[in-house]
Amino acid sequence: MGRPRRAAGTTPQHAGHTETTPRSAPDRLLAVLGAFDHAHPALSLTDISRRAGLSLTTAHRLVGALTEWGALERDPSGVYHVGLRLWEIAALAPRGLALRQVALPYLEDLYEATHENVQLAVRDGNEVVYIEWISGRSAVGVRIKVGARWPLHATGVGLALLANTDAEFQAAYCAEPLAAFTPHTLTDPARLRRILADVRRTGCAVSTRQVTEDALSVAAPVRGVDGTVVAAASVVVPVRDAHVPALIPSVRLAARGISRALGWHPERPEQRERS
Amino acid sequence: MGRPRRAAGTTPQHAGHTETTPRSAPDRLLAVLGAFDHAHPALSLTDISRRAGLSLTTAHRLVGALTEWGALERDPSGVYHVGLRLWEIAALAPRGLALRQVALPYLEDLYEATHENVQLAVRDGNEVVYIEWISGRSAVGVRIKVGARWPLHATGVGLALLANTDAEFQAAYCAEPLAAFTPHTLTDPARLRRILADVRRTGCAVSTRQVTEDALSVAAPVRGVDGTVVAAASVVVPVRDAHVPALIPSVRLAARGISRALGWHPERPEQRERS
Repeated sequence: MGRPRRAAGTTPQHAGHTETTPRSAPDRLLAVLGAFDHAHPALSLTDISRRAGLSLTTAHRLVGALTEWGALERDPSGVYHVGLRLWEIAALAPRGLALRQVALPYLEDLYEATHENVQLAVRDGNEVVYIEWISGRSAVGVRIKVGARWPLHATGVGLALLANTDAEFQAAYCAEPLAAFTPHTLTDPARLRRILADVRRTGCAVSTRQVTEDALSVAAPVRGVDGTVVAAASVVVPVRDAHVPALIPSVRLAARGISRALGWHPERPEQRERS
Repeated sequence: MGRPRRAAGTTPQHAGHTETTPRSAPDRLLAVLGAFDHAHPALSLTDISRRAGLSLTTAHRLVGALTEWGALERDPSGVYHVGLRLWEIAALAPRGLALRQVALPYLEDLYEATHENVQLAVRDGNEVVYIEWISGRSAVGVRIKVGARWPLHATGVGLALLANTDAEFQAAYCAEPLAAFTPHTLTDPARLRRILADVRRTGCAVSTRQVTEDALSVAAPVRGVDGTVVAAASVVVPVRDAHVPALIPSVRLAARGISRALGWHPERPEQRERS
């Protein structure tokens, strides 16, 4: 998984229509792709130029090359979207769609067992990225989408993932300011460290009212073939009628099912749980 | 949807370690991404250089830029995979994961109703691209994966999509040689044209033993907000115990459910079925 690779918002946004810093050719092309995000899934050429920090001429040339190749698609109104060919290649990402494909049957079983919102997430640096989301009928105030990011300490999946990073990473994470989203968000590093120790001991993370006042999540780690934690599965339920002790076994079973499908065999000594 | 954008295999493969043709900077970077496909989801630097038709030096520089940005990830053995950040951006593709997210509940209902393999596909040029696949218990000899491509005439989803392209596109398609995968594959253009007319009339496509001898598929078109066909849903079942008349209503209902979720209202005259 590695070091925190980039902070959110590294992409220069609203940097004006002129190229302020000289950048390499690959960086300019990637800046065009990076102009698209959940808040901006459809962009005009002018939007792309502004968000990528490129001149209109350069943006026009790069968007043309990306469209010709199929990484972008232009709709009849002239607005650009992410294209099917990029999606096909991205579907090969072992931590994206490929993981989702293995996990989906187990997530569906978890949904059948609970009828609540079910998620699968991976860690990228200091954040969780949701790679699957199955919506339950009791839709709690959901603020999360597939591909969305959230800080590790604020969600169940994040706590499950953070608890299974190495001691150095956890110490560095706890030393940074911890963002609050509700009065219940874990912002005290000492308390966060105690909770992470609990998560390691119990194999399960409970995150209560951290993202919204009305919801809690129960999460468990998913292990790869060598026993390292590669993802986390969770359910998000309304706090008012949550029965946490009943949810824990279901979430743990689903996470273990995905782990086994990924090749993890806890019976083999060399594949014991690792963090 | 537009013209057939590119033939399969446009990417120069096995083009040697030297750059034979001068190409633009965007083309070289995209050639690195294009080196990854279903048969090659994990590549060494040497593999990438060969498949992209780039010198090792150039490949090294471009792979470095892509890895730094998060489009590729390098595993401890030095092998490269498609990275999470590319997946996050590709998740915004309206014809990829975004469409899948809308369609998934209806596909799950179709699976519950039939307990057979369920698919969602879109057209890209002369091919179908599968963007969702839910596996049934009676797993027929399945040769299709998410992100996989198949010629339009050989599958149920392909026939449903081809029947809803314009007359000019259909004429051009039928004039090209039609690849055969079994003795039952539709290779006679006159017969294909008759079948496409049936599909338009009935709103449903049945493809029998075209891809493998033991399977058939039943497909129906999915319409977008303006009534144009944007995708197709299908079930694939073993020929030996298929009861096609019973499958047709389920597939049509699922496809209409997805269409409605995409904003199609067949009751409104301006949103009638369009091809």
